[in-house]
Order: sequence, then C-alpha cells, then structure tokens
Amino acid sequence: MAKFQIDILGCGSATPSLRHQPSCQVIDIRDNLYMIDCGEGAQLQARRMKVKFSRLGHIFISHLHGDHCLGLPGLLSTLALHQTGGSLTVHTFREGIDMFRRIMDFFCRERTYDLRFEVIAPERATVYENDAITVETVPLNHRVPTVGYIFREKPKPRHLNGEMVKFHDIPVSLRQSIKNGADYVTPDGAVIPNARLTTPADPSRSYAYISDTAYYPSIIPAIEGVDLLYHEATYTESSADKAAQRFHSTARQAAMIARDASVGRLLLGHYSKSYLNEDEHLSEAREIFPETIAATEGMKIDLL
Amino acid sequence: MAKFQIDILGCGSATPSLRHQPSCQVIDIRDNLYMIDCGEGAQLQARRMKVKFSRLGHIFISHLHGDHCLGLPGLLSTLALHQTGGSLTVHTFREGIDMFRRIMDFFCRERTYDLRFEVIAPERATVYENDAITVETVPLNHRVPTVGYIFREKPKPRHLNGEMVKFHDIPVSLRQSIKNGADYVTPDGAVIPNARLTTPADPSRSYAYISDTAYYPSIIPAIEGVDLLYHEATYTESSADKAAQRFHSTARQAAMIARDASVGRLLLGHYSKSYLNEDEHLSEAREIFPETIAATEGMKIDLL
Repeated sequence: MAKFQIDILGCGSATPSLRHQPSCQVIDIRDNLYMIDCGEGAQLQARRMKVKFSRLGHIFISHLHGDHCLGLPGLLSTLALHQTGGSLTVHTFREGIDMFRRIMDFFCRERTYDLRFEVIAPERATVYENDAITVETVPLNHRVPTVGYIFREKPKPRHLNGEMVKFHDIPVSLRQSIKNGADYVTPDGAVIPNARLTTPADPSRSYAYISDTAYYPSIIPAIEGVDLLYHEATYTESSADKAAQRFHSTARQAAMIARDASVGRLLLGHYSKSYLNEDEHLSEAREIFPETIAATEGMKIDLL
Repeated sequence: MAKFQIDILGCGSATPSLRHQPSCQVIDIRDNLYMIDCGEGAQLQARRMKVKFSRLGHIFISHLHGDHCLGLPGLLSTLALHQTGGSLTVHTFREGIDMFRRIMDFFCRERTYDLRFEVIAPERATVYENDAITVETVPLNHRVPTVGYIFREKPKPRHLNGEMVKFHDIPVSLRQSIKNGADYVTPDGAVIPNARLTTPADPSRSYAYISDTAYYPSIIPAIEGVDLLYHEATYTESSADKAAQRFHSTARQAAMIARDASVGRLLLGHYSKSYLNEDEHLSEAREIFPETIAATEGMKIDLL
C-alpha cells in the first residue's frame, strides 16, 4: 500500500527537556510531506530524521503558543538558503500570519521559494485537499484558539482483475471508469458486473492530530473511526486538576476519547516535563484503551 | 583565581547541521552569566550544559541574522515559565529591539521577570559595566551592522601580605586603600612602601568575541592582547573568494588577526556546514598562530 507515515520530531510540551522536543510531526503521504506544528529546533530534528525538505509543501499550525511554532522562522529561513523554486504554504490563524510575515520579512527577506499563508479558524472545515487527501480542522478546547487536524485519504479506485480484463479484452479507454465502479458492457450487449471485474479498493486511511486541549468529547464525531489518533496527554490522572486548570488532558482522558471515537490506535504525546518517563501515561491509558502507544522523538509509524 | 569561563553552546554557521548548532556562548564570570548570541535551540543546549538560567542577567547579540538570535523568543519564554523575579537585559540594535518586543508581546505577554532591552550601535563603546567587568563593542565588517564584544575584568586589588599586616598591626580601616596601592604611614610617621606590604594583583583577564566578519584588521587596536580571542572562521583558504563575497573570514585570516593583535590564544568557530571536520581550519591557522584551538559544542574554556 502507498506510504502514509507519521514521523515524530517532537512530542514534549511547553519547555524542551533533555528527553523531549517541542511539538512537531511530519506526515509522509506518498512522498508528499506535511508538517504539523513546528516547535523550536524542528529543522534540526527534521535533519536528524532525514526528512526531505524539498518534498515539504504545507505546514499546519495548531495554535499560536511558542512551543508549537517558534521553529518556523528558522525552518523557513533555512529553506530559503537551500531550496529553489516551489512553494510552501503555512496554515495558521490570522494573527499568526501577520506575525510570521513580519518575522520573515525581517530575518529572511530574500526567499528562493514562494512562501504562502492560508488562514484557518477555530471551526470544523476542510482547509486543504488534493487528488489524494483532505485535511480538516476541528476546534479544540484550549486557552487560545486551537484546532486539531484530520488527514484522510480520498476513496481510492478498485483494483482491476487482470485476467478478466484480458478475457473480455476491455479497451484501455474504459478501464478507469471500471476502476471507479462501472460495469462493462461487451460489444454484443452483455453486462459484466463490476464485482466480477475488480477487487475492492485499498482502504482510505486517516490520522487525527489533537493537541492541545482539555478533555473535549465534542471532537468525537469529527475523529470517529480514524486509524490513528494522536492525542495530547500532558498529565496523568494524579494531576487531573492541573490538566483541567491549564486546558490540557490526562492520558486516561485521551484514552476515553480514543475509545468513544472507536479509533484504531491511540498515540500519546505532549508530555509535561515533570515526568521521568511515560510508563504511568501508558498504563492508565491502556486500562481504558489497550491499543495505545507512547510517542517518542525519532519514532516513525506506518498506517497499514 | 575567580572563575572566567567560556561555554560553547553553538559554533556552527547559517544552517544548523548534525555536527554544529547555531551561534551561542555563555560567559561565566564569578557565577554571573552573560550570553553572547542566541541561535535557535540555545535553551536546549544551555540545559544540556547545565547552565543555571537564574544566573543569566545579560544577553548580547552581535547582529540580526537568524542564526545568531532566533533562539531568543524560546529562551525568553521558557524563563517566563520558570524564573520569578530578577531582570534580564538584551543588548541589540534598535530594529531588533522593536522586533523582539513584538514577538515577546505576542508569544509571552505575561512575564515573571523584568525583560529589558538596551540599544547598541556599530561603534566602539562600553555598553555594560559592573564592579567586576566591562563589556565593549567593536564594529565588524559584515553584510549587516555587526559588533564584536570584548569582556574585560577590571583591575583587581593587590594581595595584602598577612605577616606584614600583623607585624605593623595595620588597622582594618586602612587595608582597602593599601590593597589599592597606598603606602602605610605608621603612627610614628615612618612610611612603609606598598611593595613591601602587598603582592601583585591577579591579572585582569579579557575575552573577545568576533563574529561575523570579513578579514578586518581595523579591530586589532580594540582586541590587542586579550587572553582569548574567538574569531569566526567560516571557511578555509581554499574558499577565500567565497569568504570575501559573503563577508566572512578564513581560518588563516582569523590567525593573522590573532597574531597581529598579540592575543593569548585563538578559538575558531562559526564553521560552514560544508566541512566534514575542522582539521583544515586548525592546520592553516596554526601555521600562522600556533596557539589555536577549534571550538566545539559542549566545550568549556577557563581563562587562567
């Protein structure tokens, strides 16, 4: 199946620690790269993980807290030194666009690629699409306007059965419509039903990135059934009060969302630096939702 | 002797590589910390090197290229989460002050310490002093206004000879003036010359940070005789043309400046990422000035 891979460049929270970097992920869908959030040091992490900058076309920012976007000026400046041609689009809130434009015009006026900005809003909307995927926003519940992002592959064509194609000598010009579900009508008028000519399409995979937010079940309809859900788990239940006060989630709450949205797997992240490891996060989440893994820098996850 | 230590947090150039971080140093003088330049990732490097953020009072920016100051927003934001009280002063050019104020007001409006800015200009001037040290600027020759910084200990008091103090029963009230060079007049009018009462003061050490600049002998009077000179050596002689075009120096040129300014030791840095190591920088510099070392991340150098 074509590649749909999540690279974890950073999964720590507010201040970087020696264990975790600030938020940043790269989604690799058929060699097109999409970045979500861009904390300080993202460009260096990208280099460590051998991310091909030249394939990066879009950066989606969840909210305008420094640990989710202060790596942007450095990354955009470095691209201006190395990349020639092409374009890069940053999706963020209006006030962020003004700020990043100002910073870039100050530090990197001469750019060798087309830097574009697209406005997002804290609402459910499709903010990007191409032939292969759509990217949707879903509003979260944090101290400042924040969105989650949902990446979905579009429905794919069915697979032609080569032997049947040969047997009926189906003209090339008709094959695409058959892949899309049409029956085949032979020259003498017989109808061959699609189900005999094709096998089912590969499933359309989906990934949701939910960070930062308090426990917020309102997101469930938007993320229902995604194959992989990244959900922030800044704290564990022993700090549930602190999580609520700061509009963050506990690992248990992340697992409740995963369970109630019937997702495939849950990926925890955005850990507070007050934890020595993520054992407690994992164990309390798995009690609720067994298919849970803990993100860590350098991790690559394939959606199969 | 009291501590005067240079910590190398980053000594790479424009784009960070897997070998080098962007420019940043911390000067530790008797446990007061001064940062010079603050490239992206400086806060993480500081954490790795166990720099005590609470002792950091001043940050001096050489020029407003991203690789010398894009770590500032993240560092200043992190301090706002952890440090309470005190003040931090950033010394930079007027247009940088406007930009950093704007960024900080956007990303970190609520600060728990007093963030101050002081204007510098591309000229020779004393921009900071306290009881122990002075910090001077010297204009460099780069594509944008740039200064080097020279840290000098102030002259220190001479050491009292304890036995002579006891022998002459010198009153406590007179001892400071004797440390500062005065003779002692006994109650019966005899003059005891200072040289018999004291031993020489510890030397006043000095450090110069010169980055970024083309080969620029005009700086020699300002840095003459410093104990340690950090001089950028972005390139080696084989790329001397490129160095000149981009207003950078070669390692050989750095060594010529060191030799002609009669400094104690030369520390090379700000390497272009096109080099696999610094062997060539070192060998060509040492031909001219043998007391040369190559900076690297994590290095701490004591001035003795």
